[in-house]
Amino acid sequence: MKTVRTVIFAEGSFADDIHCKTGYGVLRYAPDTVVAVIDSQLAGRDAYEISRLGRGIPVVSDLTSALRFEPNRLLIGVAPAGGALPESWRQEILFALRKGLEVLNGLHTILSEDKEFVEAAETGGARIIDLRKEPDDLDVALCRAQRVEANVVLTVGTDCACGKMTTALEMLYEARRRGIPSDFCATGQTGIAIAGWGISVDHVLSDFTAGAAERLVLEAGADKNVKLILVEGQGALAQPVYSGVMLSLMHGSLPDNMILCHQANQQLVELVDRPMPPLAEHISLYEESMRIIKPAKVRAISLKTRGMDENEARRVIEETAIEAGLPVTDPVRFGSGVLLDAVLNDCPQKVPLSGEMAHIDLNPPF
Amino acid sequence: MKTVRTVIFAEGSFADDIHCKTGYGVLRYAPDTVVAVIDSQLAGRDAYEISRLGRGIPVVSDLTSALRFEPNRLLIGVAPAGGALPESWRQEILFALRKGLEVLNGLHTILSEDKEFVEAAETGGARIIDLRKEPDDLDVALCRAQRVEANVVLTVGTDCACGKMTTALEMLYEARRRGIPSDFCATGQTGIAIAGWGISVDHVLSDFTAGAAERLVLEAGADKNVKLILVEGQGALAQPVYSGVMLSLMHGSLPDNMILCHQANQQLVELVDRPMPPLAEHISLYEESMRIIKPAKVRAISLKTRGMDENEARRVIEETAIEAGLPVTDPVRFGSGVLLDAVLNDCPQKVPLSGEMAHIDLNPPF
Repeated sequence: MKTVRTVIFAEGSFADDIHCKTGYGVLRYAPDTVVAVIDSQLAGRDAYEISRLGRGIPVVSDLTSALRFEPNRLLIGVAPAGGALPESWRQEILFALRKGLEVLNGLHTILSEDKEFVEAAETGGARIIDLRKEPDDLDVALCRAQRVEANVVLTVGTDCACGKMTTALEMLYEARRRGIPSDFCATGQTGIAIAGWGISVDHVLSDFTAGAAERLVLEAGADKNVKLILVEGQGALAQPVYSGVMLSLMHGSLPDNMILCHQANQQLVELVDRPMPPLAEHISLYEESMRIIKPAKVRAISLKTRGMDENEARRVIEETAIEAGLPVTDPVRFGSGVLLDAVLNDCPQKVPLSGEMAHIDLNPPF
Repeated sequence: MKTVRTVIFAEGSFADDIHCKTGYGVLRYAPDTVVAVIDSQLAGRDAYEISRLGRGIPVVSDLTSALRFEPNRLLIGVAPAGGALPESWRQEILFALRKGLEVLNGLHTILSEDKEFVEAAETGGARIIDLRKEPDDLDVALCRAQRVEANVVLTVGTDCACGKMTTALEMLYEARRRGIPSDFCATGQTGIAIAGWGISVDHVLSDFTAGAAERLVLEAGADKNVKLILVEGQGALAQPVYSGVMLSLMHGSLPDNMILCHQANQQLVELVDRPMPPLAEHISLYEESMRIIKPAKVRAISLKTRGMDENEARRVIEETAIEAGLPVTDPVRFGSGVLLDAVLNDCPQKVPLSGEMAHIDLNPPF
């Protein structure tokens, strides 16, 4: 297998960990595969200075400058709101394809459906991998995920970009360290880039979003050895832009347990600038929205304390634990053991669905 | 303007008012435009015998038999679960197009993207109208609907096919009878077929579903004379197959008031065969799911009593009113005045959103 040598395209956004979350995710969980980051405004710096990730990885001004590191992949590491391709990026991506770099694209814009990109890929002998392109044969969700025997854990949140993917991955790695056979269901472009499989549910037709989540859980659960399935949540019930996606994930994956992810001290809900509701309201809404289908509790809170010093982080974790009456930690800073304990201890058995179950017709997603 | 002469394609399904709800909707709200219904199993009957709608409209075995009524439009009146085109229908639709009939298609399968249908349409000089094809320039929802001054009413439900479109249309016509300037936002293929505009939100990418609802409300509200906007709900929070679509509609359209639609005596949630939760649980979940964004109450219940005799219908309406503590009626049977009173009397003023509002950039949807 050829070694992956990724250059992360983060033009104009590398200082912004929210817009650049795909890039940050790969820097955090697969830093050895990254050779450079492109952001002309930060060229000459070390990635670590900007992101606290990827020490020793240079930030360069453009792809021409990155070529000396012999990349074989360009990852589009920026996810603008709405997800469409900014036209100003087109030339750089065409250049990458013509130079033979595989392009990993997490945008809503499907590059492999654009004639100019397809021609450039043919010219360079390169592949286009559209991370958000959905399978052709998705179906609706019919509560089939309930048949999976493993403990299914969904990471939910108070907003976008509050650590849902990170928390699921940190819990996955901790579970594997403990010898618990576990799997991760990636539902967004960054998770798919890291895990190597998944479905980007926000690029699925709304009727099939829950079906996509169901299919991922069935696929992970098809391996009967797997005891724990961590499903990456997307959006949030209190984030009107993406609330429907979150509810679809909940009702498609049918979690046994949920972990609520939250950015410490966040005052406003992003994008709509509304006051952030208290944690108790989020927890209640998540549990009530599950209860009408099948019961599932929020077992712990994953708190994002990045940017705080350690004392401040410990203080806010303690305060949050008192406020919510639940275990709380920042899994990046202090490990995810507390979160894993909460889902393993509190829910030793699956709660059966009442009523007649739908027939299972399991096809592997890929 | 040419008179529309529709033949409704309902092969194998005309006796089933759920799968054939597009056909039933047009028979109910635009019966003068319908010349025949195709269902080979029921050929020779009068449509009214089967559907209690469209008296005098014949059911015929196939399109060849329907041609003597000189149709100029074929409406695909069946909506199978998942919405894909059954291959067995292909020849009949091709035949219609080659004969010059306009085809109105409410399926997820977009006929105008299928080469064989496009060629048949060219042969016959016919149009294909894909009711579910979404606008190309949809964006995410950003609470812009709150800026609309009219009273926005969303019809929600306990399941699919419980009268959400019908209730919104009945309230629209009653409001217009009372001289209240009103508009209707169609969100599904039948509503669009009746109203002549709208967006079929279940054929929109999940990220943009709320944005589609927001756009419809802004478009209706752009006419400052409009005092009442009735938004057609889709799916239900307790129906896991479509719950995400409903939540997206709620958080995109930002209703001031909701009407809960329910099939009287329904014991199981469709598709997943789960026990139907009590009305109080549905109402609580709808109100809580709105409250985290902006308050909106369920003001009344629209009860579908079709198939009951009148005494039984009155009894179940009375019982439901006592159970829920809300006004209840069946708008098809007894008129929608009670429902309209509930949203006009209980909410004279809009409830303002707290926090800073997002910038409005209103583009008309069509």
